[in-house]
Amino acid sequence: MPEIHAPVLHRFTCELLDAVGTPPEPARIVADSLINANLAGHDSHGVLRLPAYLEGVRDSQVQPGAVATLVSESGATAIVDGAYGWGQPAMWLATHAAIGRAREHGLGAAVVHHCYHIGRVAPYVEAVADVGMIGQAMANAAPAVAPFGGRSRVMGTNPFAWAVPRAEGTPPVCLDVATAGIAEGKLRVARARGFPVPVGNIVDRDGRATTEPGDFYAGGALLAFGGHKGSGLSLLAQFIGRGLAGLDPSMYDGPRGINGPFILVIDIARFTDLETFRARAEAQCDAVTGSFPAEGVDAVLLPGQPELAMRAVREREGIPIPDTTWRELMNLAEKWNVSIAG
Amino acid sequence: MPEIHAPVLHRFTCELLDAVGTPPEPARIVADSLINANLAGHDSHGVLRLPAYLEGVRDSQVQPGAVATLVSESGATAIVDGAYGWGQPAMWLATHAAIGRAREHGLGAAVVHHCYHIGRVAPYVEAVADVGMIGQAMANAAPAVAPFGGRSRVMGTNPFAWAVPRAEGTPPVCLDVATAGIAEGKLRVARARGFPVPVGNIVDRDGRATTEPGDFYAGGALLAFGGHKGSGLSLLAQFIGRGLAGLDPSMYDGPRGINGPFILVIDIARFTDLETFRARAEAQCDAVTGSFPAEGVDAVLLPGQPELAMRAVREREGIPIPDTTWRELMNLAEKWNVSIAG
Repeated sequence: MPEIHAPVLHRFTCELLDAVGTPPEPARIVADSLINANLAGHDSHGVLRLPAYLEGVRDSQVQPGAVATLVSESGATAIVDGAYGWGQPAMWLATHAAIGRAREHGLGAAVVHHCYHIGRVAPYVEAVADVGMIGQAMANAAPAVAPFGGRSRVMGTNPFAWAVPRAEGTPPVCLDVATAGIAEGKLRVARARGFPVPVGNIVDRDGRATTEPGDFYAGGALLAFGGHKGSGLSLLAQFIGRGLAGLDPSMYDGPRGINGPFILVIDIARFTDLETFRARAEAQCDAVTGSFPAEGVDAVLLPGQPELAMRAVREREGIPIPDTTWRELMNLAEKWNVSIAG
Repeated sequence: MPEIHAPVLHRFTCELLDAVGTPPEPARIVADSLINANLAGHDSHGVLRLPAYLEGVRDSQVQPGAVATLVSESGATAIVDGAYGWGQPAMWLATHAAIGRAREHGLGAAVVHHCYHIGRVAPYVEAVADVGMIGQAMANAAPAVAPFGGRSRVMGTNPFAWAVPRAEGTPPVCLDVATAGIAEGKLRVARARGFPVPVGNIVDRDGRATTEPGDFYAGGALLAFGGHKGSGLSLLAQFIGRGLAGLDPSMYDGPRGINGPFILVIDIARFTDLETFRARAEAQCDAVTGSFPAEGVDAVLLPGQPELAMRAVREREGIPIPDTTWRELMNLAEKWNVSIAG
């Protein structure tokens, strides 16, 4: 399994995106998204996606030259049109619009219409926390997950993410999870590596429990995390994405990498002094990391801490690319006459 | 186990609250909260709470005559001071303030400072959905739940709730759950009935898994639902409650019935036509209830549907009160010279 340094992988990604007609700025933003996901250890949202992204261009699911625009702002709310371009630049436009709305009104929220895949959600809400506000985001996606008690694909894997600022100079606390028990991207990783997935996450096309990732792609369904509670959180993303972002999943029986995202920004300063908030957040963090570990656990971590630790390792040592993914990337490199040499 | 009709139980509750110094209007609001929880089948938040509520008065944790006030409004945000009165009237004030802010700005959010127990959360977010908006609420509470990987009490059982409007005249879809695997109120019910709780929800004071509700009260901890994902959702409520609503749980080692609540209102009409949203919500509901049931399941239900079904039964047949709870209520009746006769 080759280990590739982030800048090399980033340049390679930009060149591939350029080869299929992406202008430099959106190419950089999409590459940031993928490489940052790899650095954080979430390979499911890293360069593993490139083959599907380029197929998306080939199949006209994404228009690599399209430019997202701010359609409207009304009070604390904003609507972005992704114009079926890359999802990441559109979601950044929505994020900045929501921050701007929150500066003015105390809260801000934005949705993206006609949105391709937004990638890993953490960076958007982390950017909100970086300006001293609380970020929360969710998105619906093509049907993949059975509702609690069911076995048909009804909901997307629907990410849910939040970030809260800590002391100045400290990275925010950030949770970014799929409301499916396992993200579909994690299934892709498992399938690419030939691994089974933990029990309780997939049913096959006949509704039987299975641990074989291929059974999902053969017409099965994922299950939501946490029983009816996780299923209910996923359903909120589904109502909001479909109702407010306009992504009707029934229109997307084929392509999976499409999102209807919503981002919310809460301006802390409207509720309390920001320094007071930061101090309370630090006390809360101390309470978590200072708690007694459960049996077999070394240390209790905050959401986002495993990702920060992984980033430090991978920035130093490079990003390991599973052989299956590597072969796919080499095929793309050959097809588009792009070199990964450093 | 006696079965008492809702109006009888409501009058009894009002009279008890009156006996300890609660004016008629807040008494009615608190009684609504408890009786509605019983009707919905969530006895954990019903009249089972009355002994603890009255102990709260005796111990000066709650001031039955205190009146909540709107401290400030700033853009889309509002702050309510609960003045350590009953939590339900304070939370209703916050709910209506957030709705008002959302009408003006497209989003609204409110917190309550100095707040006693707000009761079951569903009615607040349902009231938001009833005016054609999306409601979302969460609250922190006294430490009871270990963070993922830990075994000390750090987070509250922290409720999370949302409601989304359906077609005009149809009750909203509403999820209202504890982010603990089991609500502390549900533990009280299990203890009152002498039942164990399902595996994976409690550790005893030494961090060992247990199903005995008493082990929690002897210094153990609850676990969050859904592993690190549910723990992460709970932690968001903890940061927001502590940071924005000002409830520092470390101050509340004793009393458990205290909340730091946050409610968010999204005005759908700023994003899309409300009728369009309702139609999309109905299509989404159809997709859920029309999905193939899992093995052993009769029908796939939406969040809130079990509660509506239970309400129909209990409005007709009365609310069953477990014998332990009944004895406690009879003791209160005798102590405060209040009769439950219809």
